[in-house]
Amino acid sequence: MCLLPSLSTPGVLTCSVTPTVATASSSPLQFFTSRSSTHPSRFSTGPAVPLARTNTWPKDVGILAMELYFPAQYVDQTDLEKYNNVEAGRYTVGLGQTHMGFCSVQEDINSLCLTVVQRLMERTELPWDSVGRLEVGTETIIDKSKAVKTVLMELFQNSGNTDIEGIDTTNACYGGTASLFNAANWMESSYWDGRYAMVVCGDIAVYARGNARPTGGAGAVAMLVGPEAPLVLDRGLRGTHMENVYDFYKPDGSTEYPMVDGKLSIQCYLRALDQCYAVYRQKIQNQWKQAGIDRPFTLDDLQFMIFHTPFCKMTQKSLARLMFNDFLSASNDTQISHYKGLEAFRGLKLEDTYNNKELEKALQKASLDMFNRKTKASLYFSTHNGNTYTSSLYGCLASLLSQHSAQDLAGSRIGAFSYGSGLAASFFSLQVSQDASPGSPLEKLVSSMSDLPERLASRKRMSAEEFTAIMDQREQFFHKVNFSPPGDIKNLFPGTWYLERVDELHRRKYARCPV
Amino acid sequence: MCLLPSLSTPGVLTCSVTPTVATASSSPLQFFTSRSSTHPSRFSTGPAVPLARTNTWPKDVGILAMELYFPAQYVDQTDLEKYNNVEAGRYTVGLGQTHMGFCSVQEDINSLCLTVVQRLMERTELPWDSVGRLEVGTETIIDKSKAVKTVLMELFQNSGNTDIEGIDTTNACYGGTASLFNAANWMESSYWDGRYAMVVCGDIAVYARGNARPTGGAGAVAMLVGPEAPLVLDRGLRGTHMENVYDFYKPDGSTEYPMVDGKLSIQCYLRALDQCYAVYRQKIQNQWKQAGIDRPFTLDDLQFMIFHTPFCKMTQKSLARLMFNDFLSASNDTQISHYKGLEAFRGLKLEDTYNNKELEKALQKASLDMFNRKTKASLYFSTHNGNTYTSSLYGCLASLLSQHSAQDLAGSRIGAFSYGSGLAASFFSLQVSQDASPGSPLEKLVSSMSDLPERLASRKRMSAEEFTAIMDQREQFFHKVNFSPPGDIKNLFPGTWYLERVDELHRRKYARCPV
Repeated sequence: MCLLPSLSTPGVLTCSVTPTVATASSSPLQFFTSRSSTHPSRFSTGPAVPLARTNTWPKDVGILAMELYFPAQYVDQTDLEKYNNVEAGRYTVGLGQTHMGFCSVQEDINSLCLTVVQRLMERTELPWDSVGRLEVGTETIIDKSKAVKTVLMELFQNSGNTDIEGIDTTNACYGGTASLFNAANWMESSYWDGRYAMVVCGDIAVYARGNARPTGGAGAVAMLVGPEAPLVLDRGLRGTHMENVYDFYKPDGSTEYPMVDGKLSIQCYLRALDQCYAVYRQKIQNQWKQAGIDRPFTLDDLQFMIFHTPFCKMTQKSLARLMFNDFLSASNDTQISHYKGLEAFRGLKLEDTYNNKELEKALQKASLDMFNRKTKASLYFSTHNGNTYTSSLYGCLASLLSQHSAQDLAGSRIGAFSYGSGLAASFFSLQVSQDASPGSPLEKLVSSMSDLPERLASRKRMSAEEFTAIMDQREQFFHKVNFSPPGDIKNLFPGTWYLERVDELHRRKYARCPV
Repeated sequence: MCLLPSLSTPGVLTCSVTPTVATASSSPLQFFTSRSSTHPSRFSTGPAVPLARTNTWPKDVGILAMELYFPAQYVDQTDLEKYNNVEAGRYTVGLGQTHMGFCSVQEDINSLCLTVVQRLMERTELPWDSVGRLEVGTETIIDKSKAVKTVLMELFQNSGNTDIEGIDTTNACYGGTASLFNAANWMESSYWDGRYAMVVCGDIAVYARGNARPTGGAGAVAMLVGPEAPLVLDRGLRGTHMENVYDFYKPDGSTEYPMVDGKLSIQCYLRALDQCYAVYRQKIQNQWKQAGIDRPFTLDDLQFMIFHTPFCKMTQKSLARLMFNDFLSASNDTQISHYKGLEAFRGLKLEDTYNNKELEKALQKASLDMFNRKTKASLYFSTHNGNTYTSSLYGCLASLLSQHSAQDLAGSRIGAFSYGSGLAASFFSLQVSQDASPGSPLEKLVSSMSDLPERLASRKRMSAEEFTAIMDQREQFFHKVNFSPPGDIKNLFPGTWYLERVDELHRRKYARCPV
């Protein structure tokens, strides 16, 4: 373990956007700030005064700031390989995973989200009443009725700001994306009152003992959404695919563990990827046509490509798959000139190739250079922390920002594929702003992510035996009432919210570690 | 029991909006219809072509069509009073409930939503690819990961339309309203592609044996959302209040039943009502000011007022509470001239009066006439079917439409209060279009609801003993696998989707009763 005591808040990554909102009255984010923060009332009846809205969409709606939280402990995948008595490399090479973060009983989905929201608010120095919408995407359901969102309202209590739209949204790993889409929609609607939206997603991914267990992970992401963002959501541009399948699901309320049909899920993922990419390409080509541009969209139009990442090898396979989509759509000449080594696969159809190992190998080879340039950097967090379900894709985004300079990123388009089993999937994209100068929103966002490697390295390494004991403990406490979780809060990062007590009526109470 | 054999599809209420969308290319709902419905493909890659969007919001976004589904069986509350050995009137007068609908094991949340969506699509005669967004609000969680939305995609399969945004959203009874808000936001955003949104909400409300059990119910509502609607959502006008409380919640995944603190929940409901009304009033007054109107908003500005209705007496109490809000905000003169019998309560504060029985009595009396004019008609469905959680408020809307003529409703403003424990609440309003002429969208919507009383009357009355046995059966089957639900599908309304089988891997398969 490599503890970096100089880090005051390890495990928490954030960016500090200057809160122009509160000071510049000409900003599109102007909002009502007459609630005195020195005299917080239990409930303020003074709502934000809506702007004198003209019915135009605000400019450049997207991600202004991000924060990433992960647990302070991990298990090394080589330790898990030995513990599970499998060949060396099964998890580290086969899955592409080196470490896996996990939570003790002291943390649950509410505490993860409390931590990540509090940190984003504190670092951005935004007033608590500057948020007009907050939605949570999660599939870590610990209450079938009460939303995580309601627990997060605790943080806003002293500000008197209770007029915050949005609740929780769920479909497997897709909830974060649904929340992001909903936030952007709100901001372009008449119901936007000039305040920020916050998108929160997080999960504790745990599996029963067996093959799937090393594909777990835990973490949460919070994103501040607003206009004039450094990462702009491409307007009117989303390719979605939904269907009814049972590839991964959680029908048993008495356990945290899912039911998984791994082989089916990979096939569903790739099929959804094909479909979403086709819809996205058609939509962007239509937009281009209206602008007088008539040419096919290909991966060359994306400088970076990020994916929901159940395990890292899956993402490499997915980029290769997108290349195959481009290849099949290309003209004969282009197929020959641009796609070396794929000639043998020219006559194939997408739907016949989900299990074609020969094709997969050829694609992996053909796309390797592209993978290294466009995608590999986005896997840093996933490699070291595992799958965080709804926040996986946004952990990839954070990783991309942490591994590239603002100059590298400026002016690029980032493609994003979100997948949630069951299934719901979307392909969308972000335009990175041109301005990467020191102090620019982009530079601030990027620099806020730069210490991701150090922060991950500051976690405590636990043995496979300790990890397994903690998983057993999670099982024992899953439906327990009237207890305070065992464990020392010194094992958590400073400033982490944790579960303090579950009373006899299942009511949960949280507290925060000293910052 | 009063069976009406002439009704071909009892229990299903709908309206038939002319599908102008598919025929009138000048309509704002123009969409791409080149997918041949005679040659359905498994997955169409032909997405809806986005309209050449100018960045203006479409006109009059709101509810175009509705459908209401409820189970074909009910228990009479007088039977429950006898069975539970309580005084006559406890449920029928004390709660204001006369009958309660309930589901056997043959129905679950997926089947309820399948039924209501299929019926709305069939009656409106819209092509399946005319829907671009579908979101489900529910707190009847039978899978912690897989959304009801994904099951509904089964209905769209043959059309090849898989590009449908939206998943599930949850916070107690608030999910339907969150879905409606999200649908309207989408339609005003750049991401709207010219197609309809569908809002689906439904729940099976069941309680453990005891005092709360008679406050159950079951049902689902589907609403078609689009521009140029007869029920227009007031633009930019929502008053929201959220906070962290444990008044009603479902922490135990091993049971369908919630934990309830009834007294706390009523107080939370009323506090949220006060807060939301204050925010709503301030927002509408701000809008008025911008239009040069400077006067306070009161209930006089709402011709009708509907509420989330956990039980009918609560709604009467709530309207009275709104009057108290108006009273406290009024000038001295108005307090005396307009609010007879409330003089004694002039000095009180809202937050001190949640348990003031004397005030409650005086308010109930003072608001009785208003209740009869503005709200009573909206309780028809709730009175006869009970609480349907997320769909309760929209069942009230359906009832209002069923009990008034289009002429009565034309030009009015309907206030709506949505409450979900935990808690999330909003006050919003609908403007009813002026045109009530025969064949107008309003007249069609209203007439589609007119047979609600007959359809409710066509249900089968079950004894309290039979009801209790079925509740016991639901408990036994809650986590069971590898079974086909017992029961005769003849007990269901024609055209109802039902649970055919749960296999050994918890996968659910549905079938439909003959129409």
